[in-house]
Amino acid sequence: MTYYSMGVAQDQCAQQKALLTEFLETVWSNGDIEASDRFIAPSYTIHNDPGDPWHGQTLTLEAFKDRVHQSRAPFPDQRFDVQEMIAEPGKVAVSWRWGGTFTGDMAGFKADGRKIAMTGLTIYSFTDGKLSGHWQLCDRLGVFQQLSAGG
Amino acid sequence: MTYYSMGVAQDQCAQQKALLTEFLETVWSNGDIEASDRFIAPSYTIHNDPGDPWHGQTLTLEAFKDRVHQSRAPFPDQRFDVQEMIAEPGKVAVSWRWGGTFTGDMAGFKADGRKIAMTGLTIYSFTDGKLSGHWQLCDRLGVFQQLSAGG
Repeated sequence: MTYYSMGVAQDQCAQQKALLTEFLETVWSNGDIEASDRFIAPSYTIHNDPGDPWHGQTLTLEAFKDRVHQSRAPFPDQRFDVQEMIAEPGKVAVSWRWGGTFTGDMAGFKADGRKIAMTGLTIYSFTDGKLSGHWQLCDRLGVFQQLSAGG
Repeated sequence: MTYYSMGVAQDQCAQQKALLTEFLETVWSNGDIEASDRFIAPSYTIHNDPGDPWHGQTLTLEAFKDRVHQSRAPFPDQRFDVQEMIAEPGKVAVSWRWGGTFTGDMAGFKADGRKIAMTGLTIYSFTDGKLSGHWQLCDRLGVFQQLSAGG
């Protein structure tokens, strides 16, 4: 890698982090799902995401929007707070804290207005400057424990 | 950041990835716990690791070795297989697959010789060229489901 290409790589990493930050804020935290057009590639692959109903699938942009819509429904005021981002060209790893109020029924659990919190870690892939997939883990056992404790 | 420091940063990232690869192989997969001296800083902080008994604690090198010893006991043939690493100076994010044979009793579960698998993601911190902490998520719900299925 030459000095020139290292400078380009550095710019690319900064752009990736900025895009991902705006995506998490706009689409997931604020629920502006149609804005996914600006962030998501035509083909988006969920390489690993245990417990996510779309685990292992490759989604069109429309299917991606449907996934966000369904996933946000139990916790419509949810927020992702980025803890840290680490980037290389084509990839960003992000650690995050998530929280939301449980106001929409979910498989096996009746909405009860409690605040639920979770941590997670995701590696996002980029293709032509847009998000084209992820490899993710989140603390779903912790969420079930919180939901069960009050149920 | 100058061109010079970018080159230095690139070397540092490569060294971090090499150290982490060797650490996972030597200490966690092969169980050479005393080799931790070469990889672990005098103070190691578990910033986030839901379900890990040492979550939130800062460990001495001896306490770190004790954690590896206790954690490996139920699955002594365990292996971590690195999927991907992403580095910046002072940090490496790593996605991994883990597997092991359940041959040592664990809280609530009797060892039955089954093969158990798990995925996870970790961000490791480096201080003076050694590992000084992590922020981690692993699919512990998936492990409990596998253990319960045969129980």
